[in-house]
Amino acid sequence: MKAIRHVKVKPRMDVSMLLEEFGNCSFTARRLHEAYSILVRMVDDPDCLKFLTVAGAAVPGGLRLVISDLLKRRLFDVLVTTGANLTHDFLEAIGEHHLRGSPYIDDQELREKGLSRIYDVYVKVESFTAMERKLRELLKSFPQRTMSGREFLSKLGEQLEDENSILRVCSERGIPIFCPALNDSILGLQVWMYTQTSGLKVDLFKDQAEILDLVWSSKKTGALILGGGVPKNYLNQALMTASKPLTYAVQITTDRPEYGGLSGATFEEAVSWGKVKPDAYKVTVPCDFTVALPILAAALIDKTSPS
Amino acid sequence: MKAIRHVKVKPRMDVSMLLEEFGNCSFTARRLHEAYSILVRMVDDPDCLKFLTVAGAAVPGGLRLVISDLLKRRLFDVLVTTGANLTHDFLEAIGEHHLRGSPYIDDQELREKGLSRIYDVYVKVESFTAMERKLRELLKSFPQRTMSGREFLSKLGEQLEDENSILRVCSERGIPIFCPALNDSILGLQVWMYTQTSGLKVDLFKDQAEILDLVWSSKKTGALILGGGVPKNYLNQALMTASKPLTYAVQITTDRPEYGGLSGATFEEAVSWGKVKPDAYKVTVPCDFTVALPILAAALIDKTSPS
Amino acid sequence: MKAIRHVKVKPRMDVSMLLEEFGNCSFTARRLHEAYSILVRMVDDPDCLKFLTVAGAAVPGGLRLVISDLLKRRLFDVLVTTGANLTHDFLEAIGEHHLRGSPYIDDQELREKGLSRIYDVYVKVESFTAMERKLRELLKSFPQRTMSGREFLSKLGEQLEDENSILRVCSERGIPIFCPALNDSILGLQVWMYTQTSGLKVDLFKDQAEILDLVWSSKKTGALILGGGVPKNYLNQALMTASKPLTYAVQITTDRPEYGGLSGATFEEAVSWGKVKPDAYKVTVPCDFTVALPILAAALIDKTSPS
Amino acid sequence: MKAIRHVKVKPRMDVSMLLEEFGNCSFTARRLHEAYSILVRMVDDPDCLKFLTVAGAAVPGGLRLVISDLLKRRLFDVLVTTGANLTHDFLEAIGEHHLRGSPYIDDQELREKGLSRIYDVYVKVESFTAMERKLRELLKSFPQRTMSGREFLSKLGEQLEDENSILRVCSERGIPIFCPALNDSILGLQVWMYTQTSGLKVDLFKDQAEILDLVWSSKKTGALILGGGVPKNYLNQALMTASKPLTYAVQITTDRPEYGGLSGATFEEAVSWGKVKPDAYKVTVPCDFTVALPILAAALIDKTSPS
Repeated sequence: MKAIRHVKVKPRMDVSMLLEEFGNCSFTARRLHEAYSILVRMVDDPDCLKFLTVAGAAVPGGLRLVISDLLKRRLFDVLVTTGANLTHDFLEAIGEHHLRGSPYIDDQELREKGLSRIYDVYVKVESFTAMERKLRELLKSFPQRTMSGREFLSKLGEQLEDENSILRVCSERGIPIFCPALNDSILGLQVWMYTQTSGLKVDLFKDQAEILDLVWSSKKTGALILGGGVPKNYLNQALMTASKPLTYAVQITTDRPEYGGLSGATFEEAVSWGKVKPDAYKVTVPCDFTVALPILAAALIDKTSPS
Repeated sequence: MKAIRHVKVKPRMDVSMLLEEFGNCSFTARRLHEAYSILVRMVDDPDCLKFLTVAGAAVPGGLRLVISDLLKRRLFDVLVTTGANLTHDFLEAIGEHHLRGSPYIDDQELREKGLSRIYDVYVKVESFTAMERKLRELLKSFPQRTMSGREFLSKLGEQLEDENSILRVCSERGIPIFCPALNDSILGLQVWMYTQTSGLKVDLFKDQAEILDLVWSSKKTGALILGGGVPKNYLNQALMTASKPLTYAVQITTDRPEYGGLSGATFEEAVSWGKVKPDAYKVTVPCDFTVALPILAAALIDKTSPS
Repeated sequence: MKAIRHVKVKPRMDVSMLLEEFGNCSFTARRLHEAYSILVRMVDDPDCLKFLTVAGAAVPGGLRLVISDLLKRRLFDVLVTTGANLTHDFLEAIGEHHLRGSPYIDDQELREKGLSRIYDVYVKVESFTAMERKLRELLKSFPQRTMSGREFLSKLGEQLEDENSILRVCSERGIPIFCPALNDSILGLQVWMYTQTSGLKVDLFKDQAEILDLVWSSKKTGALILGGGVPKNYLNQALMTASKPLTYAVQITTDRPEYGGLSGATFEEAVSWGKVKPDAYKVTVPCDFTVALPILAAALIDKTSPS
Repeated sequence: MKAIRHVKVKPRMDVSMLLEEFGNCSFTARRLHEAYSILVRMVDDPDCLKFLTVAGAAVPGGLRLVISDLLKRRLFDVLVTTGANLTHDFLEAIGEHHLRGSPYIDDQELREKGLSRIYDVYVKVESFTAMERKLRELLKSFPQRTMSGREFLSKLGEQLEDENSILRVCSERGIPIFCPALNDSILGLQVWMYTQTSGLKVDLFKDQAEILDLVWSSKKTGALILGGGVPKNYLNQALMTASKPLTYAVQITTDRPEYGGLSGATFEEAVSWGKVKPDAYKVTVPCDFTVALPILAAALIDKTSPS
């Protein structure tokens, strides 16, 4: 058994070095290093189909570039995410912005100013109007038929010019995006309004065959799961149905297991369902992903890019 | 300003009396009483369209009867929930069971025994097989056309004989169930498989008009939100789109606001979006709903039923 | 293995019945019932030395009467707590009050009004002045020598007239109170000021022999641990030193184990230290104690009192 | 109002640059940058008496070097901490080690092997025996009189040879250590045993005058509060008593405010008590300090050291 080696901080230390130090200590810091080690293994495994699932408010949280950068570098093969993240990605792709606000504010006053709050981030109501206008314009060129969510999002990404857009990066690189609850988002709502008077339809059940085909045809599977929710569950379900439990499993979540919700569920529990292999490389990092993901991404990029 | 009156526990005290005591003290206990007071007001308001949203694992958590009982008594007009809850409700409706297990267990061993774990609850894999068999049988009688999720679930509830089933109770009483991510559940998966060789289709975007019509035609809105997730977001979206912010707003969630996710978002934040009225009666209870909901339900039933 | 029996809520249901229902379901609710079962066993075991440890802000939280009632009924033999709880108990014993406030308030304004806030509770600054006055008066009758903290608190309790005071109840019934960080509280500070010009001294190291003697002379030990902190650690240390690990171990804490702090540490970890027996009856309830303790207390009182 | 600038991760990025990126995004990441900005201001303010308070298990957590390094660089003037941290610092100072273990282990087996567990860290029981031996040896040279805790710890640090020891670093540099619940630790227990047969006594009330003198004679106060507990409360009390509320206030804690405990209490609440100035620079970072502190320390060192 090895001794704890206390973290040693050095002048102008780089993030990779700090993460290396974390590997020899305890608690969440060591977990973060374990996550890194597992991701390095996963990324190096050519037989592994690599999933990134992203819940909640990662894009308003400031992680848009980190996510699109990881995807540009093809460190992941498939993205599963929420309508919220795609809504906010789209907003920025058309030149709208999120604003740095404060959580200590009179929310009624914000409402009067046309600002909507996500903890310490504000979005202008008019950004959503701009989004609707732009979306309606883009949708005109779409085929008048039923598409899966994945197909629809791929088509949508093609229309965007912003090279940092998650939607566009995925389209360009052929990375499928699954958004199982697309209907439950402002983007989904605007799509629904458009389809009321159009031949275009999005069928969210249609994605099922597509994700299953991907999983079935893989040799191994691995995932970085950011924050639980529908993206985590949808991946789980595909893995179970296709009998391809994860070989590499990393999750970053602030939820805890005792309340029984999936977002806090352990990978040990996942073994009982056949979502994760009994001998998988697996770790849960109990940390806000706005801190944890950039650290992991910086170190992964150092490790995988020719220096 | 009133003084704290310390909780006084008495022999054979009933739950309503305990909750009354909570109203004069502090922290989570007082919040629970506030929740009760708001729900009493809401239930008494004939102009209010009352939503119950239920996330995560409430049914495996043992809340199936509490929920179906609240619905039988028509304390709520609309249910928004997850595919997981409906899957587990269906399982029990056809005579399958959840088992009391332990979180301290070898999950690989569980898997070998055909048991899947949800924290301290086990489900038999064969229960899902039984469910698929039964579902295929029931679906034969369904119309060969495209239904909204709401319509489909109402039809499904009609076929069930278990009077405690949430699905059946809602069907019988005309309480619409919205399940925006039905595709992201075992029930949804089995429905999808069936529809591959059938004219029956479920269109989750179709529910949008139905929930909006309900909200538009209401004078006021109120909600008891159990645990966040897609159900909370879907309700929010309908309220915003229809410009009918909540007048009564109670949420029970163990998530915290600082990480930016919707499940932990405050009702203050919700005011900025127009999801909740600035002067709404509102409270957040930071407690596992397996404890909080039965307490609230017991007191609500005492208050509202003729004794 | 037994099936989950869903919680059934009935009109005018008493708290004991609700807790009984919790025993057949899942997650925190079932944990609460386990806590109850263990406490019933502990209370029935004549060979067991029973500890109650109370952290943080239980008295401002509104639990003063519940705690003093449990002690009056001799359900516990020893109390280990914080200076804060004793400070607030003393305040109320001399007729001062805690006020029901709001967490959403301008704290500078509160300060200007002479109110100090503990989440949603306010205390008047003048209450602390009244406390100092009364304390100085009472201390005049104290012997001019060095006392242990335990001895000092017992003497202090004797002087109080309020029959609901935790300090007085313990004095009257010969229940020792250990308060290892008494110096770290307003009560401790006022005692220190007084002792600057007096022969009275309080030696917090002196309690060590007293608690060790108690534990050494016991056959078995058991504890209800409310909220971690110094009280939990001090008990642990006595148990380890005296080689008397807990046979009955219940803790109610909202802290989680992953961050390494003692307040969230599991009883499994405690086994490795010899704080808890490997085969102890043990459970952790992840819930705010303002909700959990009154429920447990109500049911314990029903169980143990002649009806 | 400024737009969110999404975190941009670059190859061989240093920690300071990453933290700079955090300043333009959201949630916990932005909070971490705010903490850094406040600490930079505090460190640059020659009129400010700078406190570091360290709760719980920071030393077993692997932060011993980070803490002693910050103290070596005189970024803080006073340390307030727990007996646990000093116990574990002492252990390592005499050549004992903490071991990297696993939280998934049979704790009874650990006990049989003479290992005690702190989440994922093990300590050998024999390390505590070695500690006792060494301590008894060192205490022989101590004066046979009553010392304050601060004086005692300063004397103890003098005897240690390990240049990375927190105890020694503080002694050497004249940084006072306050450990208000020293009695509640293994170090305290061993000290108590020694003093049973010696003229040496430690009086924990005696520290009160010393910390108050320090605060009274300061122009301004500032603090980095790691994790709550007694160290946070003891500092608060000195600030209130001396009417010197914090001008710079940073806390890193995973506790939340709603349960009323001090460890999760906000700095807004602290304003009502006069612990923090209404216009103080203040921020709470909801993150495990094993991750947050090294990041802050790395950036602080870059900022303050001549490169």
